[in-house]
Amino acid sequence: MSFYAIIPAGGVGSRLWPLSRKAAPKFLADLTGVGRSLLQQTVDRLEPLMDQALIVTGSAHADAVAGQVPGAEVIVEPAARGTMGAIGLAAALIEQRDPDAVVGSFAADHIIEDESAFAQAVRSAIAAAEAGYVATIGITPTEPATAYGYIHAGSQALPGVRSVKEFVEKPDRATAQRYVATGEFFWNAGMFVARAQVLLDSLQRLHPEIATPLRALAAAWDGPARAQAVAEYWEALPNAVIDRAIAEPLASEGGVAVIPAVMGWSDVGDYASLAEVIDPAARANQVAPGGRAQQTLRIDSDGALIFSHSKPVVVVGVPGAVVVDMDDVILVTTQDRAQQVKSAVEALPLAGLGHLA
Amino acid sequence: MSFYAIIPAGGVGSRLWPLSRKAAPKFLADLTGVGRSLLQQTVDRLEPLMDQALIVTGSAHADAVAGQVPGAEVIVEPAARGTMGAIGLAAALIEQRDPDAVVGSFAADHIIEDESAFAQAVRSAIAAAEAGYVATIGITPTEPATAYGYIHAGSQALPGVRSVKEFVEKPDRATAQRYVATGEFFWNAGMFVARAQVLLDSLQRLHPEIATPLRALAAAWDGPARAQAVAEYWEALPNAVIDRAIAEPLASEGGVAVIPAVMGWSDVGDYASLAEVIDPAARANQVAPGGRAQQTLRIDSDGALIFSHSKPVVVVGVPGAVVVDMDDVILVTTQDRAQQVKSAVEALPLAGLGHLA
Repeated sequence: MSFYAIIPAGGVGSRLWPLSRKAAPKFLADLTGVGRSLLQQTVDRLEPLMDQALIVTGSAHADAVAGQVPGAEVIVEPAARGTMGAIGLAAALIEQRDPDAVVGSFAADHIIEDESAFAQAVRSAIAAAEAGYVATIGITPTEPATAYGYIHAGSQALPGVRSVKEFVEKPDRATAQRYVATGEFFWNAGMFVARAQVLLDSLQRLHPEIATPLRALAAAWDGPARAQAVAEYWEALPNAVIDRAIAEPLASEGGVAVIPAVMGWSDVGDYASLAEVIDPAARANQVAPGGRAQQTLRIDSDGALIFSHSKPVVVVGVPGAVVVDMDDVILVTTQDRAQQVKSAVEALPLAGLGHLA
Repeated sequence: MSFYAIIPAGGVGSRLWPLSRKAAPKFLADLTGVGRSLLQQTVDRLEPLMDQALIVTGSAHADAVAGQVPGAEVIVEPAARGTMGAIGLAAALIEQRDPDAVVGSFAADHIIEDESAFAQAVRSAIAAAEAGYVATIGITPTEPATAYGYIHAGSQALPGVRSVKEFVEKPDRATAQRYVATGEFFWNAGMFVARAQVLLDSLQRLHPEIATPLRALAAAWDGPARAQAVAEYWEALPNAVIDRAIAEPLASEGGVAVIPAVMGWSDVGDYASLAEVIDPAARANQVAPGGRAQQTLRIDSDGALIFSHSKPVVVVGVPGAVVVDMDDVILVTTQDRAQQVKSAVEALPLAGLGHLA
């Protein structure tokens, strides 16, 4: 049995602007100063577990992705069709080439601190996939977060694996607190592991309008008729997300399993969560992409996160500050207001700064 | 009768770092974007009132001062000896050359919005000086400030002129509130106007150890023995401030008068007071020395003060922010914490950034 990692690499991550840009999105950036981009870290941690990585990305980033991960197969998405389109195309390709394979989908821009816990969870997910489940890895909540969907777990299905009762949308604070108190709810980090055939057969049954063109496109992909097949099948493909298209309906039939895991996971969704994954002592000494390490000074500014580019930065009396000095723009905000960075990016064109988005 | 303006131009203004630097202090900078430095603005507003300006400065800034104010006489202070040394030397020189002259001392780095109110106050001060007083211009308080010394006014001495009961040190908040409530207290802005002979004779009586060498040095200043006189008289001169040396003791004798004035005065002592003298609509669009105007964007950051240098600045969720982008350093703080900038400057050497002070 072979295991293939499918890594959809899209999404601009605008709450991490200007570290993350349309032209240089989050997954291509080394946000934590470890010397590897988030995408490279994703592949690195899967390396011991997988036979091959397939990275699905848009044409704008295909060269950069191939340059960063030379060993991966880069699948250029002809146009965005949601996570179901991206993951479904890769899964259909793998099914075509290796009918017994197990596939797993992993976001390109998350951080996982405990790699051995991750590896153990993936191995359990593969075991559940071989037993016929669509398996998902559920993150044990560390707080009643309202930024994630939750997975409601049921009874034990296999060792270390529980059945999934349902997937629920991002809750309000009170609901999230109730979820976390029960111990039955886990964050949905978008990691799905299944036999390629199980995934495609489920999709065929639930959404034949998606599965049929994907399988037809996959059959033509490795031959001379790829371009024609793309034009024929992809353009008309409905936009869909895998959670809604497969995971939710299958869960209600008892077909989904969850592997609860504690592994220091972060989606690094904004500057507050980015700060959390950087050692407090190193927060003031991050380097912006293309920049050089600079001396910085914080006075009465505990926890301030500073990405410097070409000159020293001094922060006085702004605890939790965020200062990002890029070659072409400076952002100043605080970790408390991290969610608002998205509004700033949306307002850039009105301020005559649309070219910086 | 002639009127000479004495302008001591010293003081780094470290709470306005990095706009104000050791090598390029506040008085040489155009902090409000009007196209004239604070020193030039000081001379400009005295121009219609005076016969000649004497600017007393250290050797480090003598060339810059002469370049900015070609019409002034630049007196190079051999070493710092306090405001009494600087103003006393200039006054002694004027006394030597023009025994009946009136002199006035004016800080080089303050802002006055209402120039006609200033002119009227100076004319009243000159009249009081001709009547034999050491006259001071007292700023009518707009709030119970604790950053300034106060002048306690007594009864009317001349039209628009009151006697001074005493000078008091910077008060605590409660005391300042009490002062302001009485209507008898005015901010001491360091503006003293007197006949040169009155000033020197008072000093001679109160501090002969200062007046005697100053007068001896002044007698030699315009001749070939200046350097020798400097070595003989200046090196040993005691360090003193004019308030303590002359104004306070003379006030207790009834020899000081105050002209209360409302004239939009600011000592531009820190970023909070700098923001107050800049039109709110222009606060985000200031240009750092040597920089070029840049587009900026403020999201939920009312009143943020931005000095840009060479790239756009975006501030998100930091009301009252202060962002100063210089060619060699970036400062981020808030107007509320403006006083702490001085601590940052003091900490620069420890952070390996002493060259930026």
